[in-house]
Amino acid sequence: MTDPLPLAQALIRCRSVTPADDGALAVLEAALAPLGFACQRVDFGTTPNLYARRGTGGPHLMFAGHTDVVPPGQGHWTTDPFGAEVRGGVLYGRGATDMKGGVAAFVAAIAAVLERRPALPGSLSLLITGDEEGPALDGTVKVLGWLKDRGEIPDCCLVGEPTSKVELGDTIKVGRRGSLNAAITVHGTQGHAAYPQRADNPVHRLVRVLHALTAEPLDQGTRFFEPTSLQVTSVDVGNPATNVIPGSATARLNIRFNELHTEASLTARIKAVLAAEAPRHDLSIECSGESFLTSPGPFVDALVRAVRAECGREPSLDTGGGTSDARFVAKHCPVAELGAVGATMHKADECTPVDELRALSRLYARVIEEVLG
Amino acid sequence: MTDPLPLAQALIRCRSVTPADDGALAVLEAALAPLGFACQRVDFGTTPNLYARRGTGGPHLMFAGHTDVVPPGQGHWTTDPFGAEVRGGVLYGRGATDMKGGVAAFVAAIAAVLERRPALPGSLSLLITGDEEGPALDGTVKVLGWLKDRGEIPDCCLVGEPTSKVELGDTIKVGRRGSLNAAITVHGTQGHAAYPQRADNPVHRLVRVLHALTAEPLDQGTRFFEPTSLQVTSVDVGNPATNVIPGSATARLNIRFNELHTEASLTARIKAVLAAEAPRHDLSIECSGESFLTSPGPFVDALVRAVRAECGREPSLDTGGGTSDARFVAKHCPVAELGAVGATMHKADECTPVDELRALSRLYARVIEEVLG
Ligand SMILES: [Zn+2]
Ligand SMILES: [Zn+2]
Repeated sequence: MTDPLPLAQALIRCRSVTPADDGALAVLEAALAPLGFACQRVDFGTTPNLYARRGTGGPHLMFAGHTDVVPPGQGHWTTDPFGAEVRGGVLYGRGATDMKGGVAAFVAAIAAVLERRPALPGSLSLLITGDEEGPALDGTVKVLGWLKDRGEIPDCCLVGEPTSKVELGDTIKVGRRGSLNAAITVHGTQGHAAYPQRADNPVHRLVRVLHALTAEPLDQGTRFFEPTSLQVTSVDVGNPATNVIPGSATARLNIRFNELHTEASLTARIKAVLAAEAPRHDLSIECSGESFLTSPGPFVDALVRAVRAECGREPSLDTGGGTSDARFVAKHCPVAELGAVGATMHKADECTPVDELRALSRLYARVIEEVLG
Repeated sequence: MTDPLPLAQALIRCRSVTPADDGALAVLEAALAPLGFACQRVDFGTTPNLYARRGTGGPHLMFAGHTDVVPPGQGHWTTDPFGAEVRGGVLYGRGATDMKGGVAAFVAAIAAVLERRPALPGSLSLLITGDEEGPALDGTVKVLGWLKDRGEIPDCCLVGEPTSKVELGDTIKVGRRGSLNAAITVHGTQGHAAYPQRADNPVHRLVRVLHALTAEPLDQGTRFFEPTSLQVTSVDVGNPATNVIPGSATARLNIRFNELHTEASLTARIKAVLAAEAPRHDLSIECSGESFLTSPGPFVDALVRAVRAECGREPSLDTGGGTSDARFVAKHCPVAELGAVGATMHKADECTPVDELRALSRLYARVIEEVLG
């Protein structure tokens, strides 16, 4: 039980491509129950979710992750993506790094810690969803709501995504940028290009809007975040007539924003520019995630100490990359992401060296001991 | 011969919809020869053109016009568009105002002047094309080149387009705006919207280009011209992916410009902005006509005096509206446009009151006497 390899292999052999589970959560339950975990399926809609908790006191450390995987894809695999073959000391299979390997490493870490310290204080829990790679609507976010209703929000949460870039532990993600899409349609008054005074050119208004939104950076970046980036991804008028001023013009924007902004503040900024330059408009905003940051503090410090001790290196605290379920956890408690080297995630021949998998398990064991004390 | 009606009717009865001639120029030759004109067909390609001159000395006044007409069109005619019917004192037919009526009025004016003054000094000529309403590539512009080669450029030129707005003589056109179309494609570097530092957003560059071109008016207008108008008529990217920075972005502009600008100066202005904001670009420019202005001087003064005397009103000197062949003449000598009331031109039931046609002929006779002295 203290070796993560057998559990990682058993999980990889479940063909749990989102939204399928194919028995993955049952495999996990079977591993957790002997360690003293109370396991509950917390399915929403067709999404399978597992919540498992050991202990009732504080501090309460949660491990959040997922057993669903992306499809094998179009790339050429040299082995069965669901075979979990070990070849030359390397474990191959979809999910080896993202993140069945990470889930197995955490379970094995618990086993190892309990072997050394059967009377471990505090609580450990796992929130494992089968819909992280999909729409993520009925997974982690819903289980967190359910936990909140039960008064079981943890004190801190480790998300086991493969954050390491080159060597294990080199990167801890302590936040993610938010992402917002906006579509702006500016209305004017169509007319003949020879008589502009009888028309109202919506393209000129839109150019002023876009110039106001892009001329100056929204910020200069912060200690942990890159500068917020606003990108106009398309502008479309579709007017084939060179002598006609069109009636409307549309632009689309994508904003990747740091903790200096929110959906609300960015929406207000766009609306202010539109009110000044293009009062007649349609605006639609879709925010796929607010930015979040777990500021340096006891939890991040514990992770850093664990990396130093187990990996012998100083992790960098990073907020780059795409979204993960950590954005849902961030609304409830300090959260950070720390996991395997992600180089092969979502690619053909996804794999993780067995030694690295075991090192990850030891790293997680240190995290547990650092947090639960 | 001093009544323009029979000749106007004979011309209208030729079905000379561009590029057809249907005998129209032959009708004109037959009217001019008895008045002492040497007539030459100066056809280019399939375009029929007539050059007719009487006299060899100066001053040399040219009348420029066309015998081609636009099609009857979709509107409902209450009479045969090629019937030249006179009903209630009004002459109906395609070309009645634009501009077979004007051509006939000028020929009748010559007959009337010669009746009074057989020893008229100077020279009179007519340059009549059959391709003014069409592409206008092998008409007036080519005949002028041919005249230049022969050393026969006139001292001044009257174009007989129907410039009057409400009452005969109320408007003399002394210039026209130029018109230029530009298509700009800005190239950037495509990339993922999450990693803008690895991409080069061409939309942002194009927004800066368009903002620089539209933020300030190009001028405030001049004594005879409205302000130059630059209209962005379309911007197109066509990028459906909200998370992708596109590789290129295209805009199209139409510029209607006064005598403060030329194709060359506007092209230089666009190129300067592109050099500063978007060095990687494609630019195509099409100028359908330079602006021109016949500054107040002896020729315009002569036209104004003729209108005052014959019509009893003060003409306004105007540069509005679309293009005409006057733009070609302007490169060679002072040119102005003065003709019938244009309210029905290009419409169904195009017509001109017979009294007004005769008044136009008397007006042209005064112009001839004012110019030739
Ligand atoms: Zn993942
Ligand atoms: Zn015309």
